[in-house]
Amino acid sequence: MTPVKGGVTAPKGFRAAGVAAGLKRKTGRNDCALIVSGVPATVAGTFTRNRVKAAPVRWCERICAQGEAQAIFVNSGNANACTGAEGDANVAATARLAAERLGIAAEAVCVCSTGVIGVQLPMDKIFNGIDLCVDALSDSGSADAAAAIMTTDTVPKERAIEIPLSGGTVRLGGISKGAGMTAPNMATTLTFLTTDAAIAADDLTMLLREAVRVTFNRMCVDNDTSTNDTLLCLANGQAGLPPLEPGTPEYAAFAAALTELCGQLARMLVEDGEGATKLVEIAVEGAQSDEDAETAARAIAQSQLCKTAFFGEDPNWGRFACAAGYSGAHFDPDHLDIWIDDLQIMAAGGAVAFDEAEATARMKHPSFCIRVRLGDGPGHATFWTSDLSYDYVRINAAYRT
Amino acid sequence: MTPVKGGVTAPKGFRAAGVAAGLKRKTGRNDCALIVSGVPATVAGTFTRNRVKAAPVRWCERICAQGEAQAIFVNSGNANACTGAEGDANVAATARLAAERLGIAAEAVCVCSTGVIGVQLPMDKIFNGIDLCVDALSDSGSADAAAAIMTTDTVPKERAIEIPLSGGTVRLGGISKGAGMTAPNMATTLTFLTTDAAIAADDLTMLLREAVRVTFNRMCVDNDTSTNDTLLCLANGQAGLPPLEPGTPEYAAFAAALTELCGQLARMLVEDGEGATKLVEIAVEGAQSDEDAETAARAIAQSQLCKTAFFGEDPNWGRFACAAGYSGAHFDPDHLDIWIDDLQIMAAGGAVAFDEAEATARMKHPSFCIRVRLGDGPGHATFWTSDLSYDYVRINAAYRT
Repeated sequence: MTPVKGGVTAPKGFRAAGVAAGLKRKTGRNDCALIVSGVPATVAGTFTRNRVKAAPVRWCERICAQGEAQAIFVNSGNANACTGAEGDANVAATARLAAERLGIAAEAVCVCSTGVIGVQLPMDKIFNGIDLCVDALSDSGSADAAAAIMTTDTVPKERAIEIPLSGGTVRLGGISKGAGMTAPNMATTLTFLTTDAAIAADDLTMLLREAVRVTFNRMCVDNDTSTNDTLLCLANGQAGLPPLEPGTPEYAAFAAALTELCGQLARMLVEDGEGATKLVEIAVEGAQSDEDAETAARAIAQSQLCKTAFFGEDPNWGRFACAAGYSGAHFDPDHLDIWIDDLQIMAAGGAVAFDEAEATARMKHPSFCIRVRLGDGPGHATFWTSDLSYDYVRINAAYRT
Repeated sequence: MTPVKGGVTAPKGFRAAGVAAGLKRKTGRNDCALIVSGVPATVAGTFTRNRVKAAPVRWCERICAQGEAQAIFVNSGNANACTGAEGDANVAATARLAAERLGIAAEAVCVCSTGVIGVQLPMDKIFNGIDLCVDALSDSGSADAAAAIMTTDTVPKERAIEIPLSGGTVRLGGISKGAGMTAPNMATTLTFLTTDAAIAADDLTMLLREAVRVTFNRMCVDNDTSTNDTLLCLANGQAGLPPLEPGTPEYAAFAAALTELCGQLARMLVEDGEGATKLVEIAVEGAQSDEDAETAARAIAQSQLCKTAFFGEDPNWGRFACAAGYSGAHFDPDHLDIWIDDLQIMAAGGAVAFDEAEATARMKHPSFCIRVRLGDGPGHATFWTSDLSYDYVRINAAYRT
């Protein structure tokens, strides 16, 4: 597979737009995005497991159950969560107006929101945002859309790849936003994927779940699961190739590309996490099972003490061992080994002589790996996390007021 | 029950000492403590559930299984965790020397450590600390002992109460240390309790577990479970009353006092949590069960986003609702109500008009309550947490180096 430019408009038959409709406090910032396929597409999604689900999440779940959609409208600046029946009515009105302007059915328009919880959407601004987006739709609009879905993100995230298959190529593109309230126990954050491959909705759902399991569900900035997390993928078949069928090499190649793209976007989210100065990979191996490896990796990735040690560039292996110890993973503490990149800092459950300056030098890099071997088992898992900095506290102590 | 002075030496027949033996980097700070009963006492304890258990934890678990002890020796500055066979041998040598100096058996000496992980104990300093402690033992030594077990704590914690029973009074005293690496899923931190009540070891164990369940296991500063968490209680019967028997009013009064004292110490730990500027009570009610209430309260108490909102004095009820939502507790989001003290800030799952200045004024207090009603069920639970401040990051980014 090859990286290509264009984000969600890299695949054939997709247009996108991002505009400023006044939903964000800082004027002039993009806050409404629209992604449209020229023809009806299969759609699949993964959603927050939070019991408090925003109105747009419930709307998109119903559309994904049907398996077909043609457009995604997104606003930032307001999450439309904890907004009751009025919130549901506002989602429906949003979909109706976008559908009317696009000449499609309201049930073909996915609607997503991100931002402050508990405030009703300013519908006049939303309606204006829809009109502006429809007028601005273009096959080079992905970057504007990626900017429009940002909240405390500092950079837009978009990626696209081309996948060679036996009969030709298909493309897969995506945009994503994260920053905070990103916990790894579901499809965190907002992510929108497009592809010109043809694939049945059930198959796309299966592939998405597997890709999300090892990418978006293996990352964290903080440990909070948002009310609005949504990942949607539209597949419109406009590459002109036959539908992808399970069991074929084409299907496997597309699945691998989907996991690769999700992994790229997930790592970008951690890199741009609130206050983050480091992207830290937690790689656990030698576990009794993949589940045990994930359990230990998640505990280290989520530990406030490990995350402050990353920020302090302190090779404090006692904290990493401690987090693995309380994680619930099964292992013999006397067989625990830990490395920073290639430098061993803990051996056989205890101290090992190592060059502290070397260890600190590795941790000064914007990205490094904490490798943990729990024993001789076959299980392994990789997790991505950020450090916990003063800026995380500053950003979140002052978010709402 | 009545508060009394004297901490662990308030009950009859206990002496204590705290001395500086050079284990802490800042010279002159107390770092070794000894608590001794004049006669053999029943002992019970609760311990960390971390799989990586420090050598002294394993030693104390064996002593508590026997049910009898007479002394507790504690050092700070070094956790004796991840120290292998040498760590175990050092615990045994510590107990042997203390026992020799006190004229009792080594198996009657509990040994506890707290501090940096992965470094062998400097045994010359430990031996010196034992000698200094034995010489300094006195019936007014509790405050020195409380100071000696501190790590990043800023104030020593000691409390004692007197409990009127039908035949006379018994006393219960305690010292505690916490500060960081304090997660609520076990007996966090180091806590040492003494009482001159007479009680069988099995009964004391049962009462301790219940007291810890609703006090130390319902508090958090960060979400990390230490390798060294230990709570020990010595009961020496020197008040001269008959043994407490389950099912009697005396037994119930003692149980209530034990929970009260553990609650007082636990709240002191949160107040003095690393970087903490607030003590926040999370009170959940109307849950389907006490377990559901605890699950929701724990999620709010542990959420980085809620804790930074406490620090920012921001009545950001969306974050509190969000944490309850992802906790796993069963409730209908449309019936969720939230108050700060007596001021309602969320009603029936959505926004309610409230005076923001009033809400912020309540959050400026050093202590306030977030009250959450999940519905009309009978379940309730209370949890104590701190806020997440710049100082938490500063303290933990620079702990080891």
